[in-house]
Amino acid sequence: MEKNLLLFNTVATVYQKGKIIINGVDECNGLIIVKNGQLRAYYTTAEGKEITLYRLLSSDICIMSASCIIKNIDFSVTLEVEKDSEVLVIPANIWGKLNEANGAVKEFSLQLISLRFSDVMWVMEQIVFKGMDQRLAGFLIEQSSLEESDTLSITHEVIAKNLSTAREVISRLLKYFENEKLVELSRGSLKILDFKGLHKLSG
Amino acid sequence: MEKNLLLFNTVATVYQKGKIIINGVDECNGLIIVKNGQLRAYYTTAEGKEITLYRLLSSDICIMSASCIIKNIDFSVTLEVEKDSEVLVIPANIWGKLNEANGAVKEFSLQLISLRFSDVMWVMEQIVFKGMDQRLAGFLIEQSSLEESDTLSITHEVIAKNLSTAREVISRLLKYFENEKLVELSRGSLKILDFKGLHKLSG
Repeated sequence: MEKNLLLFNTVATVYQKGKIIINGVDECNGLIIVKNGQLRAYYTTAEGKEITLYRLLSSDICIMSASCIIKNIDFSVTLEVEKDSEVLVIPANIWGKLNEANGAVKEFSLQLISLRFSDVMWVMEQIVFKGMDQRLAGFLIEQSSLEESDTLSITHEVIAKNLSTAREVISRLLKYFENEKLVELSRGSLKILDFKGLHKLSG
Repeated sequence: MEKNLLLFNTVATVYQKGKIIINGVDECNGLIIVKNGQLRAYYTTAEGKEITLYRLLSSDICIMSASCIIKNIDFSVTLEVEKDSEVLVIPANIWGKLNEANGAVKEFSLQLISLRFSDVMWVMEQIVFKGMDQRLAGFLIEQSSLEESDTLSITHEVIAKNLSTAREVISRLLKYFENEKLVELSRGSLKILDFKGLHKLSG
């Protein structure tokens, strides 16, 4: 019966790059399972500033998009499609029913929440305890791995947004990285020259 | 039977101010229930820096001290006794048994984790998006409410530790607050003169 409940209610959707699936407060679509593609979960303040919390790749599951079924969660994340993606959505009310009736589902919810909690603690550690140069080096390595390329088509503006800092800070640091022969800058893109050096810097 | 399991295994302990109950990694004492007193939960990095995540007052429960029974939690918090405290401890193995067998206990675990997750998101928002002056103003108000006094016996060093910054930064800001007639500084303590002003500043 539970199998049927899932089978008849799970919705498969294709999203284009750039689409905002969940837009913070008051939205509670349900459990999101990424079949393929790439989503970014970020947190937005009242002032419109944002910070990337985690990314969802193939087979990743997001429970924060069903946060309304969990008591005590008083914040919400926004989900943005970073690459064209196929996702499955189990609606919040369906997941809520299963979660209530089935201990194994509840255990799974607990594990999903704990995983994201750990992700967020990692982000906080980066922010609080690492210098911006370290964070930028780590970000470039991560992006390169996500893009599967040593050339990144990304603006200083977008990098700054991801790292919650000003564009000027990023531009200055990238100039410094270029001087150190870690990267090569060109209009609208940058090429990583020295992965080993970036790794060392990212600590 | 579950009632007996709790009854025979819950340990009541009195802790003196200054005692570290849980010391980060590898410790997993169990569920900690504060009868009275005050505990501080903080996160420590390998380099020994720390950041306050939340405080536990009367009737508060800490599940992070039983994090070993929850999958996917890969960080750990330290618990420090800030005021002499009476606490009840339900050992991790006992809580683990109840959590496995009983859906209501699992739901309670989920709620406890979610509560702390929300606390941590709040702290992160403070750190990432607020200026240090705002954070300091908020900290002074919170301390005053915890101490139930407008005079705080707290060193600049301790404030700096709580806000993860340098003592010099705090001393400079407090001097500024004094000039603004928000506080009055004296050796080893400070008196809040203008709560409304601090509230306004804390945003």
